[in-house]
This record gives sequence, C-alpha cells and structure tokens, in this order.
Amino acid sequence: MSEPSSPRTRVVREPERGVYDRAAAYRILDEGFICHVGFVVDGQPFVIPTGYGRAGDNLYIHGSAASRMLRRIDQGVPVCVTVTLLDGLVLARSIFNHSMNYRSVVVLGTAVAVADPKEKLEALRLLSEHILPGRWAEARQPNEREIKATLVMRLPITEFSAKVRQGPPIDDEEDYGFPTWAGVIPLEMIAAAPINDPRLDPKTRVPGYALSYSRKRAG
Amino acid sequence: MSEPSSPRTRVVREPERGVYDRAAAYRILDEGFICHVGFVVDGQPFVIPTGYGRAGDNLYIHGSAASRMLRRIDQGVPVCVTVTLLDGLVLARSIFNHSMNYRSVVVLGTAVAVADPKEKLEALRLLSEHILPGRWAEARQPNEREIKATLVMRLPITEFSAKVRQGPPIDDEEDYGFPTWAGVIPLEMIAAAPINDPRLDPKTRVPGYALSYSRKRAG
Repeated sequence: MSEPSSPRTRVVREPERGVYDRAAAYRILDEGFICHVGFVVDGQPFVIPTGYGRAGDNLYIHGSAASRMLRRIDQGVPVCVTVTLLDGLVLARSIFNHSMNYRSVVVLGTAVAVADPKEKLEALRLLSEHILPGRWAEARQPNEREIKATLVMRLPITEFSAKVRQGPPIDDEEDYGFPTWAGVIPLEMIAAAPINDPRLDPKTRVPGYALSYSRKRAG
Repeated sequence: MSEPSSPRTRVVREPERGVYDRAAAYRILDEGFICHVGFVVDGQPFVIPTGYGRAGDNLYIHGSAASRMLRRIDQGVPVCVTVTLLDGLVLARSIFNHSMNYRSVVVLGTAVAVADPKEKLEALRLLSEHILPGRWAEARQPNEREIKATLVMRLPITEFSAKVRQGPPIDDEEDYGFPTWAGVIPLEMIAAAPINDPRLDPKTRVPGYALSYSRKRAG
C-alpha cells in the first residue's frame, strides 16, 4: 500500500480500507464498466451513471450522460468519477457491525471532451472493447456524422484512491456468543442467456462474447 | 408520465427515457440499496457509494460514506443521490446505437443528519430492513454508544427524476440487414450461497433471508 495521490483522495473514514496502489485500482476499473460521474452546476452536485473504458492512465467516459454535464466538462469543470463493485452483504452478530464487501475507486480531476475525430474514434473503440471485448470488429463502424454526434471525455487517472472491504464480519469480542447466524451473502452480477432482437434473422449465430459475458478478469 | 418536479431534474438528453412518476421512481429505489451520493467540498465534487433505505417520501442514507461528506451535510449542503439498476447490454448492428438497459433515479436536495437518538434508531431499523428484510429482529440491537457513533442522513424525496431504458436495440432502418448478431445480454445481480463466518457455531441454522436473498419486488 503506497501513499494517497493527494490529501483530497485520502480515505478519511475507516482508513484501513484505503488502497492507494495504482495496479489494484486498475483491476477494479477494468472489472467495472459503469461509473457515476459527479459534477457541479450552480453549486448543485449532479451524479449521473454512464459507461467508461480505461486505456493506460486515462479514463474515457461516454457522453450518454446528461448534456448539462458535457457542456461544463467542455469548459474543464472538475469531476469525480466513482466505480463501485459490490461483492456481498456482511451479516455480523450486532447490527452496528453489519457491512458490505465491495471494491471502489474514486478518481478526481478535470475531464476534457475529446475533440479530434481520429482520437474520438479510437476512444470509442477503447470504450466498446472495455465494455464488450470483441464487439467492435463485428458491428457497423461509426460514420462521420455519428462520430460528431457522440461525446467522449478523457480524464487522466492522476488523483485517485481505491477502497476495499472483503471477508467475514468482524464482531465485538463479547458478541461472538450471540445466538444468530453470521457470515457473508456473496453478490455477483451475472449475464443471462442473450435475447435475440425480434428483427434478427434467427439463423444468425450468437457470438461467444454474448454467450459467456463476464466481467471477471484473470489475476 | 407526469411533469418533472423541477427544471433541474428534467431529463435533458434522450428525454423520451424520462420518467417523472413517483410510484415508478419508488419501485426503482426499493429494488436498489446502494446509492452514489454526490456533494461538493471547495468546488470539487465527490461521489461516494453507500447504503440507503426509503421510508415514505424520505431517503435514509447510511453514514458509512466519507466523513468529509457528513461534516458538510450536517450544515445542509446540497446533495445528489443517484441509484442505478443495470439490466443489460444492448447490442445494435451499428456501434453508434449500442446502449444499455437500466433504471435510474436521481434525487436532489438537502440532506440533514438525524440527530434525535430515537429517530436515529428508527432510521437504522428502516435502513436495515430495506437492505436485508428480517435481519433487524435477529441481530444484537444497537446500544447507546453505537447509535451515537452512527451517522444517518435524511433526504426528502421532493426533487427527483427517473430514467429507464428497456427492450431490444433500435437500429437505423438501413442497418437491419447488416450481418451481425443483435439483441440484449441481460445482466442481473444475484446472491450466491451464504458463507458461514469461520467463528460461527456450524450447527447454526442459516436464515431464509440469507438463503434466498433477492432484490426483485412484487409488482
């Protein structure tokens, strides 16, 4: 565990759960694909879910979020991008020590819109491959009009922190004899069998990336 | 579909996905139990995941989020609470029309810390029952010290909006002949078999709420 990248990303509460290691944060960012982007308009915070991808030390955030965010991000307004993977409910003997197992990353910084059409196309490919590896090559590529109509933002992963809680409940020593079940209910996001588009030629082969979709990564 | 509760919660992008009906928003809030809370410190937005519960027209947010948020919320700083349920990946023929199926709710407002110990205990019960119905009665109840050490915030659900996308991909008419698979990969959060705490008496019966945990609600 190394030092936090700034005092703003230091984990204040339950600091023992703070993880400041870049590789650990990237494993979390690579398993997730939905982030919650926070931005401020006239003093009011907004939090919008959207898809993202990571390439090297940059996050690419899809512009399907509110256009009120994008107008501002264009101007270089500060953002916070948070990715949360929920791993389980932790049932302790005492209500107070109930918890959740999770892995989360917070990235602070200034996101800028990717303006150059060539870089934007490459960013869209990165996003697509992050969310659904293998799909890009098999779909109809974006044309000039579509590239123009899509907003992608780049956020350098400079100021960040991760927070991780795993494992069984931790009860107060005097509670271990309390007569109730204790343990973890593991939670997992799973993909069910793909559903054909009603207008699909039913003879179309379902690709492997749709049949066995999973966010679990090796390592 | 009724009118948005304020211009700030009007869905700007893809307005056809906006849902302003309170009952629809509450169904989403009741299926979820993790929210992302946005708040502002010195002009910088922060987004922190935490547990919540709904009781009537109030959200109760658990104070396990950063203490830097709680210090401010105590003072009545504006927050944004966003709940997102991810339902699937939507694979269109064109990259441009790829999408996700989801249901999300955004609540804007001023959250206040619940100060009265009796109201706080009741709020903790609501939170616990929202996340894990049935657990409260079977665990060791919070004592005075623990109630004091726990922070719960109340956010009235006044200014809110929901956004929903469901169903198959919508391609441009001229793309329907493009030779690739198209459809939906459904995604779902599921609970796996409960894991006993290593220090649990192995003869302890696993309760039903842990054996068959699910967020799906009737209706």
